[in-house]
Order: sequence, then C-alpha cells, then structure tokens
Amino acid sequence: MRALDAEDIEALAVGAWILGTGGGGSPYHGLLNLRRLYAEGARVSLLDPEELDDGDEIAVVSMMGAPLVILERLVDSRQIARAVTMMEEYRGRRFRAVMAIEIGGGNGMQPLMAAAHLGIPVVDADAMGRAYPEAQMTSFAVGGLEPAPLTSVDPRGNEVVVARAAGWKWMERTSRKVCTEFGSLAATCKAPRLGSEVRRWGVLRTTSQAIRLGRAVRLANRRHQNPIEAVLAAENGIRLFGGKIVEVERRTTEGFLRGRTLVEGLNEDAGSRAEIAFQNEWVVVWRDGVPIVSTPDLICVLDGDTGEAIGTETIRYGQRVVVVALPSPPVFLSERGLSLVGPRAFGYDIDFRSVFGASPSESAA
Amino acid sequence: MRALDAEDIEALAVGAWILGTGGGGSPYHGLLNLRRLYAEGARVSLLDPEELDDGDEIAVVSMMGAPLVILERLVDSRQIARAVTMMEEYRGRRFRAVMAIEIGGGNGMQPLMAAAHLGIPVVDADAMGRAYPEAQMTSFAVGGLEPAPLTSVDPRGNEVVVARAAGWKWMERTSRKVCTEFGSLAATCKAPRLGSEVRRWGVLRTTSQAIRLGRAVRLANRRHQNPIEAVLAAENGIRLFGGKIVEVERRTTEGFLRGRTLVEGLNEDAGSRAEIAFQNEWVVVWRDGVPIVSTPDLICVLDGDTGEAIGTETIRYGQRVVVVALPSPPVFLSERGLSLVGPRAFGYDIDFRSVFGASPSESAA
Repeated sequence: MRALDAEDIEALAVGAWILGTGGGGSPYHGLLNLRRLYAEGARVSLLDPEELDDGDEIAVVSMMGAPLVILERLVDSRQIARAVTMMEEYRGRRFRAVMAIEIGGGNGMQPLMAAAHLGIPVVDADAMGRAYPEAQMTSFAVGGLEPAPLTSVDPRGNEVVVARAAGWKWMERTSRKVCTEFGSLAATCKAPRLGSEVRRWGVLRTTSQAIRLGRAVRLANRRHQNPIEAVLAAENGIRLFGGKIVEVERRTTEGFLRGRTLVEGLNEDAGSRAEIAFQNEWVVVWRDGVPIVSTPDLICVLDGDTGEAIGTETIRYGQRVVVVALPSPPVFLSERGLSLVGPRAFGYDIDFRSVFGASPSESAA
Repeated sequence: MRALDAEDIEALAVGAWILGTGGGGSPYHGLLNLRRLYAEGARVSLLDPEELDDGDEIAVVSMMGAPLVILERLVDSRQIARAVTMMEEYRGRRFRAVMAIEIGGGNGMQPLMAAAHLGIPVVDADAMGRAYPEAQMTSFAVGGLEPAPLTSVDPRGNEVVVARAAGWKWMERTSRKVCTEFGSLAATCKAPRLGSEVRRWGVLRTTSQAIRLGRAVRLANRRHQNPIEAVLAAENGIRLFGGKIVEVERRTTEGFLRGRTLVEGLNEDAGSRAEIAFQNEWVVVWRDGVPIVSTPDLICVLDGDTGEAIGTETIRYGQRVVVVALPSPPVFLSERGLSLVGPRAFGYDIDFRSVFGASPSESAA
C-alpha cells in the first residue's frame, strides 16, 4: 500500500483520460474535487491486488451517464461516497476498499474521491483497463460474476437499488433507465466483489498504469519532447492517423452520447479521411471507408500538440489530432470477451482484427 | 375481520372494474387466479381499518403498468406476494396486513392474491377509491406521507428498490421507468403504511364498497332488472350519456395507455356526440365539444346491457355504452387533491366542476 501524492493525482487525470478512449467522462471536475480534498489534508492510499485477502469486500464505483452531461453538471464528491455507504447499508456490511469499474476518464478518479471521504484505500485495478459504455462490458461479466446488486444515487436525494438482475444486459437496461431519469448522470456502486474475484477477474494495476502514462506525457511536455511518442512508448501503441477535425455529429440519447467525427488527413496522411464512430467511447475508425481499428483495441484521439486526450464530448471542428491504438487487456480478446465488447456488440458488422496482429484465438484469455 | 367467500370474490371483480373508471387493469386474470387459490383451499380475510393498531405495518400493493399489457400478459399470483416479501427483506420487518393502492380494476384484486400466499389479512381500504394512473395521485400523497421505499418485481427475476425519492413525482418518474423497462408491467409494493396512517389518510372501506356494488349489478342481471340503474342507486351516480362507440384511438406510450374514444348518441342522446380522453383511466368527457365531467369525479363507461365496466384497453367500435359519473372521495376535492388529480394534472386546461354540484371549497377535505 502506498500513499498517492498530489503529483500522482495530476498524472492520473492525464493518463486516465487517454485510457478512456474518448469516454469515461472528462476527469477535470474530479481533478478539481481531489485537489480540494488534498488541500484539506485528505490522502488516498493505493492497495495492490495482492494485498487483498480472498474474503475482503470491495466497492466498485463509477459515475454512470452520458459524457456531455458529466461535463455540464458539477458533481459533489460526496455523491460517489454516498453510493458506497448506501450499498453498505443495503447489505449490512462494510467495505475493505474501493475500486473503479473503469480506469478511463473521470471514472478513474471516482474511487479516489469515495476513498477520501470514507477513509479506505483504493485497489489498483479496474474491470475494463479503459472505458466502455455499458454494464456488461466488463471483465467481471466475461468471468460470469453476478451483476447485482447496484446502488444508484442522484444529487436530489433519489436513491435506487437494483437488487436482482436476470443477467448483465438486464442490469444495464434497468440501471440505465434509472440513470437516464436522474438526468443521464448517476453515482453508482456496482455489484460488490471479493478480493479473490478482483485478483481472478479484475484488470490489474491499471491505476498505477494510468499514473505512469500521465507522468510520461507531462514529462515530455515539460521537456518539449514529442508527447505522442511518449504515449506510444509507454503503452506499446501504434500511430494510426493524423489530421484536422472537419465534422462532428453528436447526440445525447438513451443515456449515451452517440455520433461520429471526420478527420481530414495532414502531412503523411494528406489526401485521406478518417471517420470515427462513438458511443460514449470511440468504437470504430474507417480510413477512406475501410475499417482500420475497432474495439476492444483502445482507440485514443490525442491533441497533436500536448498528447492529452480529447473526449467524444469535447471533440470539435478544427482540432489537430493524432489517432493512436493501444493494446486491449487480453481478457476481452476471448470469444466471450469479443461477444461483449467487439464491434458487433456496438452494432457494426465488422470482424475484429487487432492492429497488434494477434488473432483472437492466439490471445484468448 | 370477516372471511371473504367465493361469491365476494366474483362481486369484487365486477365492482372494482366499475370503480376502476376504465383503468386499474382488467380484473379477469386476477379473478381466475383467485378462483384457483380458493379451489385449493385458500381463504382471505378482510380487516376493518378500525381493527388496526396504530403501529401495525401495512403493505400497499399494485400491478403497475399499461392496462393493455396487463391484459396481454398472464401474471402468476406469486409475483405480487414476492413484491411484499422483498419489501419485508429490505426493511427487516414483517407486515400485519396488505392493502390496495387503488381499489379500481385488477388492482382491487391484487392484495387478495398477496394475502392468500402470505397468510395475512387484507385491509378494507385503498388510497384512491378508484384507479388513477400515477404514483402521486393518492390520498397518501394528498396527506404528504413519504413516497419511498418501493419494491418492483418482474417475472424474469429482476428486482428493484426505489429506496429514496425526492418527492412523489420523482417516485412516479423513477418507478415508471423501471416498470417500462420491465415491459410496462411490474408487481410493486409501495411505501409501507402504519395503521394510524391508513386510518387518517386511507380511503376507507372501499373493498366492501366494491363488493356491494358488484353484488348489486349481479343481482340486477339475475333478476332481469336494469343494471345501470343498480349502479346509479348503489353509488349515488348520475347518468351522463348513452350511445355507440364509433372511434377508438389508443397508444401504449411511456408505460401508459393513452388515447380517446368517440360515442355517437342513441335514444335520448341521439344527435349528440361524446368524446372521452384517457390516460389508463377516463379523464375528461366532452359533449359536442363542451367538457361535461372530469377527474376527480369518477367517469365510468358501462356496457348498456350488463352494467359491467368497459376498460380503456377493451373499448371497441360498435359497443353500446352508458357513461355515468360517481362521486369522488372528498380527499381529492381539496386544493392539494385537485392539484394532483384534477384535469390540469392530466394536461387539460379545464376548471374542475363536479357534476355532483359541490364546489371544491365546499367539499374540501
């Protein structure tokens, strides 16, 4: 267990935003919340999954909703802590620690806020290694763990428990409708996990991964080195396309942010166009009409100058961007994993072929 | 406390359907369920509200949803009992008895099914004296009682607790979305009530009222007397219009059944037309374009031959109907009552004027 310092928090915001693949919500409000909590003396500790006992109970948190709304609505950091204590009250048991359902975007910061209020550590793990839009798109679902219960909280004092779900997609449907009614934004505590389940099915050490990635980008910027190169080096990534955003089509619907954006190639990509479809996160990239990358490969749209991530809710006309791919956690490359997060799970009739070359069967978890 | 016999159940189905003012769901499936439970030896007891101790805890149940779906989907009687035991588990306390949130339609039968499975009595009361479509349209809401918690159950094994609600309309919104996702039909246990609350804010003795009304109609039919007259005599009702259904416009939307129907006058009403708007229940009647009756007055569309009710989901072209009005429980004639269930609460810019003559202020509860 190690205490996270103020520089770790800054780096986490940068790294989690890149791993968010466009979604998970901007970490900016969470960063402001954490700066304030740290200024007031709070310190959050990071717990390695190996330090968990098998029977330890872990709260798994996230802000659920549409990224555009997350950006528009300031959220008190106590709301995510309330989702956790509500789960404790519902089950009549206390949690040993808290972890993220997704390390990507603001949701990589949420466990730290809950932990600061509750005085418990954060587990260095999540269930995506990135961000995904739906409840069944987790390593816990790949592992067939129970989807319920879930607590959902809004700032007005509305609180719902999804006590049982007939399956992961039912959990997604029911909790999404509640979230939508709460204004497309809800603090949630997902199904609690045992220490043994986190070690077996969690995507491990992703908080420290995000901090390392953020440090690399911040360091490159300070040294006036190429921050895109720093991202690629830190994560074994591949550069896919560079250009200027010339079109954005975006709608907040059914609790999601959906749409597509068009990138006009510059320099070595001049004369080509990339189109990127998103559902909260970037899902598929086509180059001149041909799909070149899709989930579960991580698709990151980065600011060409700073290497910082651009989200599906902040992308806008005129931005100079570089599109890169980072490798997926292996758990999603299994047949069951691809059925949950492959391009067909998002409605695109495309076979998944990783830009990192390994065929699904070779990399099966 | 008295045991209800098989004839009481038959009469309740007829009377509750009339008091349903078009909604509450057809009691037919509930009647089949209860006939079977009675054939298997179950007996349900009816408890007068005066027999309740102040501290007794009462489960308040209903099937929530769109009447058309209620008609289409057979429901196991154990589902409503599960909503009650789920509430017992959630609160860690047992119920003394069960009651209806609305006596109207199939929801007048639901407490009997729960009671038969759970072996507890039914309180002779409800919170509407009829049926209304929304959660805040109850005497308990008029009384400012707490709207939460609520349990909601579907047949697939999905179970939700609305643990806290920021107000009655928030309870309606959140629980309606859950119900809609469950397929526009859910077994619900509403906020538990104390014996003292039922006596102060319940609409009392409506189960026995519905049984009396049903008996009167059945007796008139057996004796070849006019069953419409029997309804008017039993409930101090007023005949408004008689004619033939010539148009029905109906859509299941947002968990409700909405629409309007047109009645062409016959006999003394020949040459006139009545239009009736509904949201699950009949809401406003216009005669030749002039509003003649609206909620909270009870609007009942009865089969001209049998005096039995016709629901908003079963009304169809060619039916010979008589439209009658029955008086509302006084609690809804107060200013607060009218704000919750008057015509404006359904979106009609009409002042409520009771066909029974009393102005709202004179009858204020």
